[in-house]
Amino acid sequence: MIGKDCVLDHVAIAVKDLDKSQRIWEDMGLSFSTKREVVESQGVTTAFAQMDENAHLELLCPYGENGPIHKFLEKKGEGIHHLCFKVKDVVAKCDELREKGYTLLNEQPINGANNCLVNFIHPKSTGGVLVEVSQKKA
Amino acid sequence: MIGKDCVLDHVAIAVKDLDKSQRIWEDMGLSFSTKREVVESQGVTTAFAQMDENAHLELLCPYGENGPIHKFLEKKGEGIHHLCFKVKDVVAKCDELREKGYTLLNEQPINGANNCLVNFIHPKSTGGVLVEVSQKKA
Repeated sequence: MIGKDCVLDHVAIAVKDLDKSQRIWEDMGLSFSTKREVVESQGVTTAFAQMDENAHLELLCPYGENGPIHKFLEKKGEGIHHLCFKVKDVVAKCDELREKGYTLLNEQPINGANNCLVNFIHPKSTGGVLVEVSQKKA
Repeated sequence: MIGKDCVLDHVAIAVKDLDKSQRIWEDMGLSFSTKREVVESQGVTTAFAQMDENAHLELLCPYGENGPIHKFLEKKGEGIHHLCFKVKDVVAKCDELREKGYTLLNEQPINGANNCLVNFIHPKSTGGVLVEVSQKKA
């Protein structure tokens, strides 16, 4: 059964070289959008490939030395960074999760890629997985 | 554009307690199948939740102390273990990837969950992501 209010949007991978990583995932069989997007709140340039009708693979490559992805790469190296789920109402979902004891990274949602409002749930709350919840802006 | 021969099948997460982890992902909004499956080749019990029409979340919990998931948990703790993509012909895909220089974990495909033949690509080949390729058995 598919959860009505929680659908996979993307799997995000932290990478050091966007072109090199894109070629690896093309070898796996994925096709990338020609559009790349800078997400200033995260200090990254992103590249996207569809993995099925709903979900895409998002490569995250830092363009400076201050963002969370740069820090992640320094600490852990390249690899999966987070899972993102689409929700209908990101504020309501975060309030619900806070009440249940989950730790959110931001008080209020911030701007994410693809014209979305997003927040993140701390991996200590979720069994080691950084989870992004995302709502398309009206 | 969706790659015709490479569609996301599941995201697998290594967990220590299947019931506890299932409750976390239910809090996120996912619904789990009541069916759990033992995969002897990996020494794990699995639980599945749909994340969209195609892809599911797979929780992997070791039942002994010898399998790869037990070792992963000891070394890295709970977290995302691998991404799995459905391919039409797992042998042909692995041959193609070997020719391009990727390292496969098994010479020949092995039995995976859900009546599939599977093989794994070493994370050193893919930029830090363990990738499973999977073909439904006829």
